[in-house]
Amino acid sequence: MATTHHQNGAAARAAEDGIKGNGNGNAAAEWRFARPAKERALAAAGDKMSIRAVRFKISASVDARDPRPVLPLAHGDPSVFPAFRTAAEAEEAVAAALRTGKLNCYPPGVGLPDARRALAKHLSRDLPYDLSSDDIFLTAGGTQAIEVVISVLAQPGTNILLPRPGYPNYEARAALNNLEVRRFDLIPERGWEIDIDSLESIADKNTTAMIIINPNNPCGSVYTREHLTKVAEAARKLGILVIADEVYGNLVFGDSQFIPMGVFGHIAPVLSIGSLSKRWIVPGWRLGWVAACDPKKILQQTKILTSITNFLNVSTDPATFIQGALPKILENTKEDFFKRIIGLLEETSEICYREIKDIKCITCPHKPEGSMFVMVKLNLYLLEGIHDDIDFCCKLAKEESVILCPGSVLGMENWVRITFAIDSSSLLDGLERIKSFCQRHKKKNMLNGI
Amino acid sequence: MATTHHQNGAAARAAEDGIKGNGNGNAAAEWRFARPAKERALAAAGDKMSIRAVRFKISASVDARDPRPVLPLAHGDPSVFPAFRTAAEAEEAVAAALRTGKLNCYPPGVGLPDARRALAKHLSRDLPYDLSSDDIFLTAGGTQAIEVVISVLAQPGTNILLPRPGYPNYEARAALNNLEVRRFDLIPERGWEIDIDSLESIADKNTTAMIIINPNNPCGSVYTREHLTKVAEAARKLGILVIADEVYGNLVFGDSQFIPMGVFGHIAPVLSIGSLSKRWIVPGWRLGWVAACDPKKILQQTKILTSITNFLNVSTDPATFIQGALPKILENTKEDFFKRIIGLLEETSEICYREIKDIKCITCPHKPEGSMFVMVKLNLYLLEGIHDDIDFCCKLAKEESVILCPGSVLGMENWVRITFAIDSSSLLDGLERIKSFCQRHKKKNMLNGI
Repeated sequence: MATTHHQNGAAARAAEDGIKGNGNGNAAAEWRFARPAKERALAAAGDKMSIRAVRFKISASVDARDPRPVLPLAHGDPSVFPAFRTAAEAEEAVAAALRTGKLNCYPPGVGLPDARRALAKHLSRDLPYDLSSDDIFLTAGGTQAIEVVISVLAQPGTNILLPRPGYPNYEARAALNNLEVRRFDLIPERGWEIDIDSLESIADKNTTAMIIINPNNPCGSVYTREHLTKVAEAARKLGILVIADEVYGNLVFGDSQFIPMGVFGHIAPVLSIGSLSKRWIVPGWRLGWVAACDPKKILQQTKILTSITNFLNVSTDPATFIQGALPKILENTKEDFFKRIIGLLEETSEICYREIKDIKCITCPHKPEGSMFVMVKLNLYLLEGIHDDIDFCCKLAKEESVILCPGSVLGMENWVRITFAIDSSSLLDGLERIKSFCQRHKKKNMLNGI
Repeated sequence: MATTHHQNGAAARAAEDGIKGNGNGNAAAEWRFARPAKERALAAAGDKMSIRAVRFKISASVDARDPRPVLPLAHGDPSVFPAFRTAAEAEEAVAAALRTGKLNCYPPGVGLPDARRALAKHLSRDLPYDLSSDDIFLTAGGTQAIEVVISVLAQPGTNILLPRPGYPNYEARAALNNLEVRRFDLIPERGWEIDIDSLESIADKNTTAMIIINPNNPCGSVYTREHLTKVAEAARKLGILVIADEVYGNLVFGDSQFIPMGVFGHIAPVLSIGSLSKRWIVPGWRLGWVAACDPKKILQQTKILTSITNFLNVSTDPATFIQGALPKILENTKEDFFKRIIGLLEETSEICYREIKDIKCITCPHKPEGSMFVMVKLNLYLLEGIHDDIDFCCKLAKEESVILCPGSVLGMENWVRITFAIDSSSLLDGLERIKSFCQRHKKKNMLNGI
């Protein structure tokens, strides 16, 4: 080991430890914080299990010389399109809260009392019992809500059940907490309902919770009262908590109805995750929540709520003035705004489903009923030189400047997630480009043309 | 075990596992998510190591019948006092960013490019080299910056070095990540400088980083160039990273000068934690950052920066429109605002130091030179029936409606932290009440009166 001209302890210890130094005093290998194990764990969570990271990588394939606009069909954020601008009343409420100058202070860890109270009242309208302020925990977006819930549940030797396909942030957060995840299937032929048998078969005595996403991301399905009852009963039977990801709550079309999981809170305790992000089209405001929907107070008795409070006491918060605006946002946003947004999403969901039918190399098994997405199967046997979903997405980005979310990041290889939460002309343009791409890449020797 | 009338699996398994059920089907003990180990870990982090939680508990001692205002001398947040209102230009920048309607979208995990660029430029003014956008990671306040840094460093078998007294969030976050912490002393007789010998003696080959807080919370000290050089050299010798908590950066008085740790980044790599919270008096805006001050690019080579990016990809963010306002906040805030705030803090720090001298049962070993705090020793031998710092704070809250931060949450029992970041009349009132309290509780049989 060449550490001859070094007098310092780091180099000497590096030599003792067998860490190779290059002798110039600045070699990274001499620094004790360089530990590949953590880097690998973080790469698994924050790179492979992150829609943001995957989007970024796929976007890097876009050809800068393409004069056409890049079409973001990978993620659910239509906020930049004027038609999807948030309600004027909501924006006004935030501006007014800021302008008071009295909401620049630290908030309590669990959120401002008035905001918790207003949200409890708002959510109680759709429940057969009343939530109190104490049932509400404000979080910095749905993302922090996931962090809180997973961190509170994570214990060595336990596991949680996640849907496949699903939202990868649960998996990422579980990985960061060394929490084992097990996957149950959603069945495309049954409107992406949960396969309850598969759910029950993978659970064991160390299973503590299951996640249900409704309206569903990434599938666009909305669960019926009957199905949700079965889910609650399965959770009761297994003795597990239901984490209901309802960030797309109320964003349902046609005959579908959004039924909060909390309606079944008397069967099994529910932690509902919600957010302003999707319904108000303001993901950048970073205001979300965890609501304990648990009329039998099991989460209180088992100190899960105390643990959530403790976790939030040492964690960051949503901006105080945005919290302060919440009562007015909930009170003043007009029904017309919600109707208009749902009308737009219904229209674009129909365009999306109709146009996809026309593209033979992709198949959408179930018409979207809610949320902002559809899951679409790639018929790779019809395509030449496309290896998998990531390859499909990268080549599509390169040739057509359309960004899709590969299914493998959502737990389903060789599927893609497409958002319809974008203005209809951009959506039509995007689907037209996908069609061109598929035609260009179709196998020449197939009997049936594409 | 009485589970006779149960047909469900949870009860049956609870019986198998020896978990006691009470037979009514809703017993908490039948639910598999009730696991005391996690609850205890979270209670340790979020209850005992949280200033928020401790403040809340001490505030609960206040006598509601006391007609006087409760005086918050426990934490550094003067934002609610009109004299400490943030700069009009900063408020205007945030309102304008919100009103564009174009910043309601998700931000990139590491922050908006324009905001990172502006901050890199801003911080580079005080460094002997230029930071680039890639060196800046925006976080949801200093709190998330701590979370990111500790989470990225935490690996089984490693440890980090924390100052005693210190800011408990580091310890809390380390506990949540199962990261061992070791404490080095700050020496009150030497202006709360770091005891470098103690620092070196507790480090071993598994030590990866040390924390330095400058201007210091909770001590109010500001480190000299000479001392910071010694710290950097010690870190170099140990082969560890310096995490420089500079959230009170620039808040220094009199002859003191704030020298960013990044100035010594060529000696040992530095991750500087900063925030708008203190200098702009807007802790509720939740905009902070981690800046890699590392001209030799060791943090890049060792993939620490990649790990930070990966962590932020699956974590929450500061609100996008607040990020969007950052360039204007940095550009437009007038020097007059900073001067006025520092003038106020200098005035109140002097009042605080002077008045404490007059109270014999407490001792302030070092006149504050920066930040918003002083550490004050309780001379318990002069007091009757006060057991420790927590007892002192609870009784003071009860009898005088003054809230202080007990030293034990900061790592130093039988000291208290007092903030002077409050308007001067409230501060004088508070110190007067502390004096009355001490006089009332002084030992009757002491030769020297209090």
